[in-house]
Amino acid sequence: MKFELLYKSKKSRARVGKIHTPHGVINTPGFVAVGTNGTLKSIDNDVVEKIGLELMFCNTYHLLLQPGPQVIKKAGGIHQFSGRKTPIITDSGGFQVFSLAYGGVADELKSRGQKKSDGHVLKITEEGVLFRSYRDGRRVLLTPESSIEAQKNIGADIIIPLDELPPYHIDQDELRKSFDRTHRWEVRSLQEHLKNPQEQAIYAVIHGGLDLALRKESCQILSDHPFDGFAIGGSMGKTKEQMITMLTETLPSLPEEKPNHLLGIADLPSLNECIPLGIDTFDSSYPTRMARHGTLLTDQGPLKITRGVYSHDYAPIETDCCCPTCQNYSRAYINHLFKAKEMTALTLASVHNLAYMIKTLKQIREKILDGEI
Amino acid sequence: MKFELLYKSKKSRARVGKIHTPHGVINTPGFVAVGTNGTLKSIDNDVVEKIGLELMFCNTYHLLLQPGPQVIKKAGGIHQFSGRKTPIITDSGGFQVFSLAYGGVADELKSRGQKKSDGHVLKITEEGVLFRSYRDGRRVLLTPESSIEAQKNIGADIIIPLDELPPYHIDQDELRKSFDRTHRWEVRSLQEHLKNPQEQAIYAVIHGGLDLALRKESCQILSDHPFDGFAIGGSMGKTKEQMITMLTETLPSLPEEKPNHLLGIADLPSLNECIPLGIDTFDSSYPTRMARHGTLLTDQGPLKITRGVYSHDYAPIETDCCCPTCQNYSRAYINHLFKAKEMTALTLASVHNLAYMIKTLKQIREKILDGEI
Repeated sequence: MKFELLYKSKKSRARVGKIHTPHGVINTPGFVAVGTNGTLKSIDNDVVEKIGLELMFCNTYHLLLQPGPQVIKKAGGIHQFSGRKTPIITDSGGFQVFSLAYGGVADELKSRGQKKSDGHVLKITEEGVLFRSYRDGRRVLLTPESSIEAQKNIGADIIIPLDELPPYHIDQDELRKSFDRTHRWEVRSLQEHLKNPQEQAIYAVIHGGLDLALRKESCQILSDHPFDGFAIGGSMGKTKEQMITMLTETLPSLPEEKPNHLLGIADLPSLNECIPLGIDTFDSSYPTRMARHGTLLTDQGPLKITRGVYSHDYAPIETDCCCPTCQNYSRAYINHLFKAKEMTALTLASVHNLAYMIKTLKQIREKILDGEI
Repeated sequence: MKFELLYKSKKSRARVGKIHTPHGVINTPGFVAVGTNGTLKSIDNDVVEKIGLELMFCNTYHLLLQPGPQVIKKAGGIHQFSGRKTPIITDSGGFQVFSLAYGGVADELKSRGQKKSDGHVLKITEEGVLFRSYRDGRRVLLTPESSIEAQKNIGADIIIPLDELPPYHIDQDELRKSFDRTHRWEVRSLQEHLKNPQEQAIYAVIHGGLDLALRKESCQILSDHPFDGFAIGGSMGKTKEQMITMLTETLPSLPEEKPNHLLGIADLPSLNECIPLGIDTFDSSYPTRMARHGTLLTDQGPLKITRGVYSHDYAPIETDCCCPTCQNYSRAYINHLFKAKEMTALTLASVHNLAYMIKTLKQIREKILDGEI
């Protein structure tokens, strides 16, 4: 992997670059779609490729349990297996193990720390995390080494070391313990990776929650190791303001010549705020999940396609959109498919929202180059 | 519409032809896919077109209740509305009204005539049939004239007159009454159609159940009117043998120069038996429904893709298949998508089964031309 920094804004820390991978180029800033199980929900990879998605995010936790990394390895890797020709990134599996235990961040915030593990995470030790498979109840031990081994078998272009996602409600001592262990796990992951790089790149995950000193320390520790890039993980806070403060303070501590990624956040307001801070790539399932709930992204704001007013609106979702949905179908037809509970509705809506994100990021890159951001 | 009879088999009553419609040609014998709500389930019309489907069957009953024929009319007709450029046929709505009342044929056979209407059909009179909408409970009167009006607004290439589907368990007197009324309804439908043909063709529906004399009488009555083609409807019996006997006796009573259609039956064994009897087109939702249940059609018979043995089978569904699914994906990947409950599984499987039917019918046409059928 090679990161080519093409342009740095004079107005902000925004930058335009290209990440070169064995399966092609990722233009940055770029949107990364989530294809948990090796497919985006309701769109096949062939169509996704035609829309121009550059990077897809798959989840090692899910692939570990179904179909299992050996099945993917025997296919010749995730690209061969999934029919996807362009770049793929996998995470370590850790995020899902911990978020299933603590619930989503929103759930945990709502529960004010009262939510206890439901027996999903059985034990966290120096070695790794023992958890119960959601599919068949079997006990699985995930260690830095086993996560990397799984990610080697899966064979994505970019992989991520095992880290621990501490709960938001955690005291300072526990956070420090988790923080230190996470960094030891990450370094063990890197060492395991370097035994057989396999042309994969590995991004470290920056931790430290909302503690700005810890964030800086995390950047320092991880920058000292030959990671190929950096992902911002861990708790981002309760509000967008907290996240922005954290990113504003953290990003300058990362080496400029390496790409960075914001884990799990890519709503449009966050994109607009985080790109000037210097974030290169963003993943989120939100555009496709919104689509499945009938919310379509447009330059005029979100459009709830199931509203009655669209039942006889024969315009495309967006007049100037080049996506296959807007080229072929009207709002009225998509409204009808949702009302008739046709799966095609979910496909057409997802295609548009994905294309919208790709188009929006392209426009943002142009704006940076034009000196507007 | 023009039916061009290209070739008549010397071995059987099989024939090869072309039905020319305002939206293109339908090669016969041909498979007609069911797109109840104006889309095939889990495949969008743009993809369906690329696979080469020539005729799609939409259900007036469903379109009447959602989105309503006026919405489709205002779009410029079903082709404009659904983004489908190639031919479409609609039924009258009668079949669904009656089959929802009596249950599917299989249900009714199992119930031995004990199943009573569940209040869905409120009243059958000379005027038409009053039923309760399954969507919102409102009472809807479907008459020959209102069905044709709906089908004019929908604007398919081929439409079907309103008929009554008598239950299989019916005494001779009741069957006769239903038979006579059906023919009066069909003639009223034709008269309504002829007031404004709109470049649409209209197929009569041949009735008479398993009574061969009634079937012949139906052919005679309806052939005396300027219908553009004939659909075989009504009860086809309990067994395939009963259907074959009925078709063998009935088809020679239809005018050779007009196309005919077998309603609702297109499983492969039936195709192989009915084509030599002279059937031109067949509709059925079975290939796409089978696909959604993980059963894939192949020349070696049905393949249950969710079986464990396919989890590490990296061959395509069929090695020599040119469909987008077989060109891009393996059995192992499709097995995985089914196991992971990804909607994409349903799309990829449906695309293959649909392409399989299209390919099979093409091969059958070639066999007829080669003198093998």
